[in-house]
Amino acid sequence: MREIELIRSIQNVAQTIPVDRRVLEGIGDDCCIVRPKPGEDLVFTTDFVIENRHFTLETHRAVDVGHKALARSLSDLAAMGAEPVFCLVSLAVPEALALKWVAGFYRGLGALARRFEISLAGGDLARAESVIADVMCCGRVPSGKALRRSTARPGDLIYVTGELGGSALGLRKKRGSAWLRHKRPEPRIAAGVLLRSMASAAMDLSDGISLDLFRLCTESQVRAEIDAPLPLARGATDVDGLHGGEDYELLFTARPNAEVPTVLAGVRTTRIGVLKRGKPGVRYGGDPLPVRGFDHFL
Amino acid sequence: MREIELIRSIQNVAQTIPVDRRVLEGIGDDCCIVRPKPGEDLVFTTDFVIENRHFTLETHRAVDVGHKALARSLSDLAAMGAEPVFCLVSLAVPEALALKWVAGFYRGLGALARRFEISLAGGDLARAESVIADVMCCGRVPSGKALRRSTARPGDLIYVTGELGGSALGLRKKRGSAWLRHKRPEPRIAAGVLLRSMASAAMDLSDGISLDLFRLCTESQVRAEIDAPLPLARGATDVDGLHGGEDYELLFTARPNAEVPTVLAGVRTTRIGVLKRGKPGVRYGGDPLPVRGFDHFL
Repeated sequence: MREIELIRSIQNVAQTIPVDRRVLEGIGDDCCIVRPKPGEDLVFTTDFVIENRHFTLETHRAVDVGHKALARSLSDLAAMGAEPVFCLVSLAVPEALALKWVAGFYRGLGALARRFEISLAGGDLARAESVIADVMCCGRVPSGKALRRSTARPGDLIYVTGELGGSALGLRKKRGSAWLRHKRPEPRIAAGVLLRSMASAAMDLSDGISLDLFRLCTESQVRAEIDAPLPLARGATDVDGLHGGEDYELLFTARPNAEVPTVLAGVRTTRIGVLKRGKPGVRYGGDPLPVRGFDHFL
Repeated sequence: MREIELIRSIQNVAQTIPVDRRVLEGIGDDCCIVRPKPGEDLVFTTDFVIENRHFTLETHRAVDVGHKALARSLSDLAAMGAEPVFCLVSLAVPEALALKWVAGFYRGLGALARRFEISLAGGDLARAESVIADVMCCGRVPSGKALRRSTARPGDLIYVTGELGGSALGLRKKRGSAWLRHKRPEPRIAAGVLLRSMASAAMDLSDGISLDLFRLCTESQVRAEIDAPLPLARGATDVDGLHGGEDYELLFTARPNAEVPTVLAGVRTTRIGVLKRGKPGVRYGGDPLPVRGFDHFL
């Protein structure tokens, strides 16, 4: 069973539960959408950061892990076009780890939180066999303006922000700017806010474009053709750009007549392809692109 | 460094971050409080359930773990007097565990969610070295009506719902109704809602009354005297009742002239003591009560 099928089975459980009228959108997008009042919607997301999967204690300092834990969730807010409101931080650490490490984690997380003005409103602390953090972020968007994965249409053009493959390259090299980029991803909040008025759909690139674009196609019931060169990070290969995860750039679509600037809140945008009618899937240079991104349950 | 000091140091980080005007109450209570609109406040809480700390795969079936993961967070909503709105479920499981286990977890969680009508709106799935679940719950209360830990006053009477020590007894015996009670705690949502109009402060009993009552005293700057017998579960000892965690009953205080019924939403209430002016702490039968509840960072 792959992750996507597992999520379907969880959606089946979710559908047996009465849905509160405030909840507009549940499982399946970067965030769920809640409307407590007309005028403003709240979006919610939660993301794990797990030792030996997303980082190791040898290569990442506590401040790096704290940064990354919050950055992953903020990136999901960016994907919805949301502005940060507050976060809850759950952190489990092994007994052997000094509490200095915990303080470093919160220092790294706090520095990013100050930059994005997201309140640290609560959380949980526990002991576990290895380090696990789970950060829940709440963001806000004008009612009905949240960017979704499911609203792209055939004919829409496909774009990405920034450069791809840098995180995968950094993970391989373990030095230089690519490594820093891997350890300290930058959530595209400001770009996401601007995209509210120009994108037809959006998501963030956390698991590699081959998998993430496939997910967007599945949710929107379209197929994608990548027909232009990817904006690769310097030194990154095509494989890094197509299948490397954790770039935390935004993948978005826009109607062909939408005016998408080449720079958005200081970040480059690149048109990489077009959506077509047809069975959900991705073609690259005319051939089907195998889904090789990071699927937790493959 | 004890958990309470660690939380203070995290509060210090939180205070360096601008607080969104929607966030009324941050770290330090069972839930944070958010006011997206006048008239209704939202409360948020998140709780870990961790293999070999809160359960073992040998003694707990997947449905038990799913039940408990949601019940712990729902209990925090009950402590605020909140009604459930939605939850986000983060679940990490080792590769060796069959996906059938994951399906069982969601079945157990889903059954409890249906009973309490809380939407399953999203979450995260990942692989880890052992099972960790982190469940975030959102609840709602009329504006300003959330029950807090910090609002008790000297002279208030101290009450608990239900019976104490049953969970600790169950954990020791591993059979019978106490064991079932340990595995399938029942969140006191309906009692919490009724307490909104009669309690001066409330919290849930997750870590044992010696620690939890101490926390309430610290937040309200009062001292507590337990001067009446605890309502012990059948077969439970004084130690189970005073220091045993995971009863998930409500601990609450009320003004001396408040009319607290002896049964609240089908659950017994028992007056166990009184709050006095003085340095935060708990006395039991005239002597200082050592804090021996479950402190993750002792």
